[in-house]
Amino acid sequence: MLLDMKHWKHVFKLDPDRELSDEQLDRLCVSGTDAIMVGGSSGVTFENTVDLLARIRRYEVPCVLEVSNLEAIVPGFDLFFIPIVLNARDPQWIVGHHHQALREYGAILDWQLVRTEGYIMMNGQSTAARITEADTALDAKDVEAYVRLADRLFHCPVVYIEYSGTFGDMELVARCKELVREARLFYGGGIDSPDKARKAAQSAHTIVVGNAVYERFEQALATVQAVQSN
Amino acid sequence: MLLDMKHWKHVFKLDPDRELSDEQLDRLCVSGTDAIMVGGSSGVTFENTVDLLARIRRYEVPCVLEVSNLEAIVPGFDLFFIPIVLNARDPQWIVGHHHQALREYGAILDWQLVRTEGYIMMNGQSTAARITEADTALDAKDVEAYVRLADRLFHCPVVYIEYSGTFGDMELVARCKELVREARLFYGGGIDSPDKARKAAQSAHTIVVGNAVYERFEQALATVQAVQSN
Repeated sequence: MLLDMKHWKHVFKLDPDRELSDEQLDRLCVSGTDAIMVGGSSGVTFENTVDLLARIRRYEVPCVLEVSNLEAIVPGFDLFFIPIVLNARDPQWIVGHHHQALREYGAILDWQLVRTEGYIMMNGQSTAARITEADTALDAKDVEAYVRLADRLFHCPVVYIEYSGTFGDMELVARCKELVREARLFYGGGIDSPDKARKAAQSAHTIVVGNAVYERFEQALATVQAVQSN
Repeated sequence: MLLDMKHWKHVFKLDPDRELSDEQLDRLCVSGTDAIMVGGSSGVTFENTVDLLARIRRYEVPCVLEVSNLEAIVPGFDLFFIPIVLNARDPQWIVGHHHQALREYGAILDWQLVRTEGYIMMNGQSTAARITEADTALDAKDVEAYVRLADRLFHCPVVYIEYSGTFGDMELVARCKELVREARLFYGGGIDSPDKARKAAQSAHTIVVGNAVYERFEQALATVQAVQSN
């Protein structure tokens, strides 16, 4: 069965390097979220990724690996998301790691399971922006140009506007959603309450709730209902 | 009318910064080549591009602009090829210039006419490789990984192996042709005789004859017949 992302409104992003109790994981997996995305900016290893996958696999929820580390490509996920960081200054994060991965696994990869994400890093203070040396001094026209580039030049099925821990400019996100023709617009950053989830879901196709899971668990859990009941 | 590149076997690449007599241009345009591609690594301006386009437009041959310079985007071509230099060390040649162009023209562009080319620069001595700071220390597995990346991750309709002025490794090119699923494999470099054209055409889907037009005109012209009579 191939997953259809077209109906995804809500995704939890879980970090293999951070702790969740079995009870918390259970509540997330049966929450009604459309998918669990596994990924993180640092400390992701094969071991902690395979461990988290095994725990999520007890549930029916679709489970996606966002690949950020060649050493941590674990088989058995429903989809593999490959980030292309469009505003990275270091080309390793645009094509370099991808090239290295394809050099190793290109011949054996099941391409049906691979999806590119055209990432736009918006928060220069975030770990991800620092690692990728992202140019975050972007005005609205810059962001819109990256959205078009990801959608129409690179044919990314996911265009991902990532504010990492801060709540973004929802007017800009909404304009970007109008620009994409084939891609689905993902928004992530600062969604730590049902109210913010609702606002973000009005602007993006799919919202991603990450940090809040670890910092404000009950609020994070309540974002599902806020979005899915719309 | 939209052009179908699927049947292209032979292309002449003409440099707006180099000279051709009217008689030479006439013979190229009625030669039976599948298309004329206009582009160059240096000295390309709006003026010399529009001038060359006007001269080619008197003929029926399809005419494509390979965009290498934002200042030289001239309307009126049948297609616009956008190079993505996969092995560039300078990210400007992977996404930067593209982003800048979309910032300016993204809203008014006719996307039906745009095609990406996933470029692999093979000759470190060439002007193009020096400008893009290409990493040309590639073994066969590296090249194959870039081919897969262009074809399957970036969905480039053209994957272009460019040996710029030297005749490449035809066994490697032939293997790369077998790897692409959706793209057409273009080969360019060192085709300055009918014999080399024939060999290259056995390995790639489409061969590009460039420098030879300016250096060995009659031999360059004879490459068309060598390929099209196969």
